[in-house]
Amino acid sequence: MTDNAFCPTLAPSFRALLDEIQGRCVAVVGHARPDGDCIGSQVALARVLRALGHQAICVNQDAVPRRLEFCARGESFINMDGLGQGEIIAIFVDCADHERAGKKPRERFAQPFANIDHHVSNVGYATHNCVDAKAAATCEILAGLFLDLDLPVDAATAKALYAGIVTDTGQFRFASTTGNTFRLVSELVSRGADPVEAGFELYEREPLGKMQLLQHFLASFEMHADGRICIGTIARGVFDQTGTSPEDTEGLVDYARAIDGVEIGCLIEEKEDGAKASLRANDPVFRVDQVASQFNGGGHACAAGLNFTGLTTAEFRQRLVQALITRLHEVDASKRN
Amino acid sequence: MTDNAFCPTLAPSFRALLDEIQGRCVAVVGHARPDGDCIGSQVALARVLRALGHQAICVNQDAVPRRLEFCARGESFINMDGLGQGEIIAIFVDCADHERAGKKPRERFAQPFANIDHHVSNVGYATHNCVDAKAAATCEILAGLFLDLDLPVDAATAKALYAGIVTDTGQFRFASTTGNTFRLVSELVSRGADPVEAGFELYEREPLGKMQLLQHFLASFEMHADGRICIGTIARGVFDQTGTSPEDTEGLVDYARAIDGVEIGCLIEEKEDGAKASLRANDPVFRVDQVASQFNGGGHACAAGLNFTGLTTAEFRQRLVQALITRLHEVDASKRN
Repeated sequence: MTDNAFCPTLAPSFRALLDEIQGRCVAVVGHARPDGDCIGSQVALARVLRALGHQAICVNQDAVPRRLEFCARGESFINMDGLGQGEIIAIFVDCADHERAGKKPRERFAQPFANIDHHVSNVGYATHNCVDAKAAATCEILAGLFLDLDLPVDAATAKALYAGIVTDTGQFRFASTTGNTFRLVSELVSRGADPVEAGFELYEREPLGKMQLLQHFLASFEMHADGRICIGTIARGVFDQTGTSPEDTEGLVDYARAIDGVEIGCLIEEKEDGAKASLRANDPVFRVDQVASQFNGGGHACAAGLNFTGLTTAEFRQRLVQALITRLHEVDASKRN
Repeated sequence: MTDNAFCPTLAPSFRALLDEIQGRCVAVVGHARPDGDCIGSQVALARVLRALGHQAICVNQDAVPRRLEFCARGESFINMDGLGQGEIIAIFVDCADHERAGKKPRERFAQPFANIDHHVSNVGYATHNCVDAKAAATCEILAGLFLDLDLPVDAATAKALYAGIVTDTGQFRFASTTGNTFRLVSELVSRGADPVEAGFELYEREPLGKMQLLQHFLASFEMHADGRICIGTIARGVFDQTGTSPEDTEGLVDYARAIDGVEIGCLIEEKEDGAKASLRANDPVFRVDQVASQFNGGGHACAAGLNFTGLTTAEFRQRLVQALITRLHEVDASKRN
């Protein structure tokens, strides 16, 4: 490691973790409804482990989203049913808690070997926990560790890491983006990450149905708290109507947050037996993870999510709006003091 | 300069140019309808010149757009009428040719002192020409020169340079984005550029009406030629209904072009006595400027526009679709040969 190390605090424990694998097969486990940081982390870590001579396989209960296929080319993803019963250890990546990977992975890996993550709510549920809540992405942690420890990062690995960083920073716009993020990305680009390819694949190959989904979402906007909260709802039936699926909601909530004056944007997705909500704040002071936790959800200070059952969408929306307004008032009060 | 210099070829001539200013007052001249790279370059260069002890003033025939005000705070912009008749030399920035700044600047500065730019068509119309067509932005050239020559880049200068780079690379997605771009940006962030503030000011302060305009535009999409053409229409009355104006259509046509499989995206804007159309292709091979010219319009190979009168929108749309389909077939035929 040099003076310019990216991850000096975590690098020694990551090195120790690698040494402890000792030829065992590693399941690199990601979370349900995987996003760019999840898939990017899984692909990159599996590739580096294999380059170091270990056996590694990517495990995810859900499929790789189409827009992320470009950075998972040549990588096999299996679900728990495909894993078989042989001896295998698990490294959970980008999973804020043990549940995030789904029921089957949690049961099979009651005590995961390792947990690599950047969520502030991660309490460390594995034997080895490489958690840095200041990192912009799990891929930022992994990229830093790989470069610090001089591990083999080839073009495919660099592309996967880049995909995770560019998506989890909202194209380098979220508060977690630092000078270090750009320095890391510069290294990844010099190793073969391609910002043009990634930009095209991630943002310019939208299915027509996704545009129609966006149209429905925009048409549903409701403003609350004098325009400081914007909530949009994907009603039951809209996925069928537009030929889309829940994975196509990715990024939609940002349209609610991007309106001038809006401090918290929300997306509510109606489900058969309840709904799912995504919350995005334009300032970490709003700690939307804490609002989400009131509904048994969680996440980051600026980006959180939750599921609920047992209420109508209208009832739930009302409670959520109330909780958000309370939070705005708390923040207003703390600013006055 | 170190081994890691950003602009080794241009740095010596830029150094010589600075030495030649010799206490004269400098007008830093930008182009009409200024974008982020223009405003960022003007602010940054004027600040650095003043930090070096020169007098410098930003000159632009048009006002700083609202979304760019954050990086021009504390900087005075004047137009040619405000410049007075005293001795002054001009450095043109981000102006591909002498005309781009407008008629008055071209006449007053018939032979500009310098020209700093990244457009491939720049032929060098000044005494000193710092042109690098490989640079992602004029701000990338300036940032590289400032850092290479160890000139004073404070936070406000870093913010201005960042704004130019992030906008002219389409948020680090255009082909001009390199590892060097990210390395430079990392330096700018360490000097005070703020990706969060820039992202917010540039991309997340959309009026609610603009989102509603987008919603109307998306709802109007029609696909033609097996999904290779997507046309959206802003009907008469939608501006009033959403509290928007024609300037708010900026960027909308990209939603038509960004659909998977679409090769040409169009926006038709109904007017009192006809309509206006914008065409965007995802490949210059389609030469949409030539299609526009069939309707007395024009533009670039990938981005063109036209106005028409005397037809209903439906009639016009039909003729435009026919012209575009003909163009697709011509391109298909030329690819087969």
